Amino acid sequence: MENKTRPETNLKSLAITLLVGVIIWFIPTPSGVSGHAWQLLAIFVATILGLIIKPLPLGGVAIVGITMTALTGTLSISQSLSGFSNSTIWLIVSAFFISRGFIKTGLGRRIAYLLMARLGKSSLGLCYGISLADLILAPAIPSNTARCGGIIYPLLASVAKAYGSDPEQGTERKLGAFLIKSAYQVNMITSAMFMTAMAANPLAVKLASDQQIQISWGSWAIAAAVPGIVSLLTLPLLLYKLYPPQIRATPQAAQIAHDKLKEMGSVSTQEWVMLGVFVLLLVLWIGGSTLGIHSTTAALTGLAILMLCGTLSWTDIIQEKGAWTTLIWFSALVMMADYLNKLGLIGWFTHSISGSVNGLNWELAFLILALVYLFSHYLFASSTAHVAAMYGAFLSVSIAVGTPPMLAALVLAFFSNLMGSLTHYGSGPAPVLFGSNHVAMKHWWGLGLLCALVNILIWLVIGGSWWRVLGLW
Amino acid sequence: MENKTRPETNLKSLAITLLVGVIIWFIPTPSGVSGHAWQLLAIFVATILGLIIKPLPLGGVAIVGITMTALTGTLSISQSLSGFSNSTIWLIVSAFFISRGFIKTGLGRRIAYLLMARLGKSSLGLCYGISLADLILAPAIPSNTARCGGIIYPLLASVAKAYGSDPEQGTERKLGAFLIKSAYQVNMITSAMFMTAMAANPLAVKLASDQQIQISWGSWAIAAAVPGIVSLLTLPLLLYKLYPPQIRATPQAAQIAHDKLKEMGSVSTQEWVMLGVFVLLLVLWIGGSTLGIHSTTAALTGLAILMLCGTLSWTDIIQEKGAWTTLIWFSALVMMADYLNKLGLIGWFTHSISGSVNGLNWELAFLILALVYLFSHYLFASSTAHVAAMYGAFLSVSIAVGTPPMLAALVLAFFSNLMGSLTHYGSGPAPVLFGSNHVAMKHWWGLGLLCALVNILIWLVIGGSWWRVLGLW
Repeated sequence: MENKTRPETNLKSLAITLLVGVIIWFIPTPSGVSGHAWQLLAIFVATILGLIIKPLPLGGVAIVGITMTALTGTLSISQSLSGFSNSTIWLIVSAFFISRGFIKTGLGRRIAYLLMARLGKSSLGLCYGISLADLILAPAIPSNTARCGGIIYPLLASVAKAYGSDPEQGTERKLGAFLIKSAYQVNMITSAMFMTAMAANPLAVKLASDQQIQISWGSWAIAAAVPGIVSLLTLPLLLYKLYPPQIRATPQAAQIAHDKLKEMGSVSTQEWVMLGVFVLLLVLWIGGSTLGIHSTTAALTGLAILMLCGTLSWTDIIQEKGAWTTLIWFSALVMMADYLNKLGLIGWFTHSISGSVNGLNWELAFLILALVYLFSHYLFASSTAHVAAMYGAFLSVSIAVGTPPMLAALVLAFFSNLMGSLTHYGSGPAPVLFGSNHVAMKHWWGLGLLCALVNILIWLVIGGSWWRVLGLW
Repeated sequence: MENKTRPETNLKSLAITLLVGVIIWFIPTPSGVSGHAWQLLAIFVATILGLIIKPLPLGGVAIVGITMTALTGTLSISQSLSGFSNSTIWLIVSAFFISRGFIKTGLGRRIAYLLMARLGKSSLGLCYGISLADLILAPAIPSNTARCGGIIYPLLASVAKAYGSDPEQGTERKLGAFLIKSAYQVNMITSAMFMTAMAANPLAVKLASDQQIQISWGSWAIAAAVPGIVSLLTLPLLLYKLYPPQIRATPQAAQIAHDKLKEMGSVSTQEWVMLGVFVLLLVLWIGGSTLGIHSTTAALTGLAILMLCGTLSWTDIIQEKGAWTTLIWFSALVMMADYLNKLGLIGWFTHSISGSVNGLNWELAFLILALVYLFSHYLFASSTAHVAAMYGAFLSVSIAVGTPPMLAALVLAFFSNLMGSLTHYGSGPAPVLFGSNHVAMKHWWGLGLLCALVNILIWLVIGGSWWRVLGLW
């Protein structure tokens, strides 16, 4: 029971975080801003900074942030805890629990093996097969780390190994390097395509709704579909040309998949239940507004079915650590963003900005804003921290320069995922895949930048045309 | 990753639970009750029944209950999730996290060993030493299972073993039987003495506040202090007479404690931090209303300090399963109780009762109510389910017959703990201690009933006089 602790606290980061919070706290409040709003801003900025420089793990920073809002009297205890009952948070928490079912029942692996058996005879086909598996699983697995690192990566690693592509022997370029790099880039795209495909997406939705922009599950998916599919078709091919695997034919991959499928046997009852719940969820999420069922109610219903059918046990739920961590940080950020808004700070900020950007050409101004938003991801080790720190402000400035609100909200939300391409630390699955040592650092960064640029082009030009068709601008 | 499930779902219990819910749902709504209120009652009763007959584990029942309120349109999704931001819930959840620090740092064991070294030279002294340790730890360890089963029980088991008292050799009555039985009875008393000493206590507080009775942490502790201390002094002595250990002098126990303390070495920094936080918490909880610090804010502050000092890591938090399970069931019940109240059902119920009980002598009526409440615990396998099912209704009837509201709320809350004495399944630590096989079933039940009767007498007579002094009636 007892064990010695190696404290997780990084004292230097803690000192910087506290110092920044204290400095902002004592800056004289600008006119037009209430004292409480300014105090909350100080706590908010310190919390975001904490998410970035990590004096404590994510959840710890969030708990300290929540505590400070109540302890300083900036908010009442009920206000401080209000984030925990936010419906967007329970959408993502429920989806985390549900996604455990894909892993536990083996359905996730089965889908991936089926596509690998069908498409895996060449290294490019294998890559597309894996992309399709990622795409299919994306709507119901909001942890892209679980999806890419937990389901896709082990499959690719086993194929690479079967072909003797091993970084320890210097043979990573035979096959592994290409597969790993493409799987990562593909994951950034699938993450951008559904509200429930990445943990921080619903945070963007919530921050947009604070500015009266309501993004539904269906409208996100429709807007992302066309540029998403084009990106999914383009990027593997691009990497295949620029970063080619030495092995082009991979009959063994298809064979491995066949063998694994044989080993797995026929589809189990629990897999059918999982599949049924998955289809039900897609129907309810897509048709939810017509049926009058909230997306969170749909997710809870799926979860309840999985529990009643015994597909997920209470132990599975309670051990799903990512879900609980998300609950905590998400609630802290949503609560602070909510009250910054209610206390008038967002309004004051937008009003201040509006004056100085009047008369700018919005297309150019928004392009610059979106690019700054995306490339500043070089400075972030987490999408969550980046979205929490910058999404709200960039959205409000974008609207102030005249960008159609829904367009601005969606583009910034999509870019919140596509920006993950850039570095080997900027997104959950990056450390897992980069850590396999198949891809050298210079290639990871160089190709990452290139992929980001190609994605920007595809999403702004082809996406832009599609959004015009949809009437978003 | 993958493993075969043995479904946890008990189909028979599930059928009964659903059937009861459906039957109530379709009973014509009585006049004066809204349709939504009646539907919520059906879901509430089915949920409580589910907590008792367990078609799924506790948390699963709660999630299905929450889902049903939203899916049936009885409540909006925001209303269904509202329980999660309740401050009482986060008081208990934070206390769960904090209590991990007692176990992890070893401070809990050290306190118990210190008292054992000082008082443990006789079996009765040992029993009092252990009682004092339980009492000291009670305010900050809301899981009485962790306190009694996790800290106290292992100590007693090791002493019993050292004296050759072993159920497998038929020597349990030498020492183990007496120690185990007394430790259990003592734990029921310490659980009754503080709002934060048992997980369901804050639920009683919340249900009382729904009926406009505000019980603070300090007022609970003061009201319970006198009868609690008398019980703690009386019951070990009673058991010592009626269920005596064959070994009366236990110099070895004191020796074991001395050895263990030597082995533990000097007090570590983390233990000092834990002790400091514990003292701070007591000060803030007792003086909170004067200082203007909410008890939940105090608990969060303690937790934040433990995290910042590295006493608790994020992994400790995330693995504290009892806390997450409590968060879920507590939120479900609080939400339902809240809306039963807001939708007017509690008012309707109280109003209906008031008419029929007019003119009764409240002292006698309340005595009967309190006894029925306590002894109905023979039917319950969990304090939580019992409190959730009966506390609110019994409180409202008690008030309707003329019992002073605060008195009624406190007595029923205290009895919610004391009732645990009765059976070997009625409280969290019971299965652990009974499962050690030191105490035969007939003794567990017989002595349990006797202890319950003695406790009732002490709490109503001595407690009653004390509450008179406090002006509660």
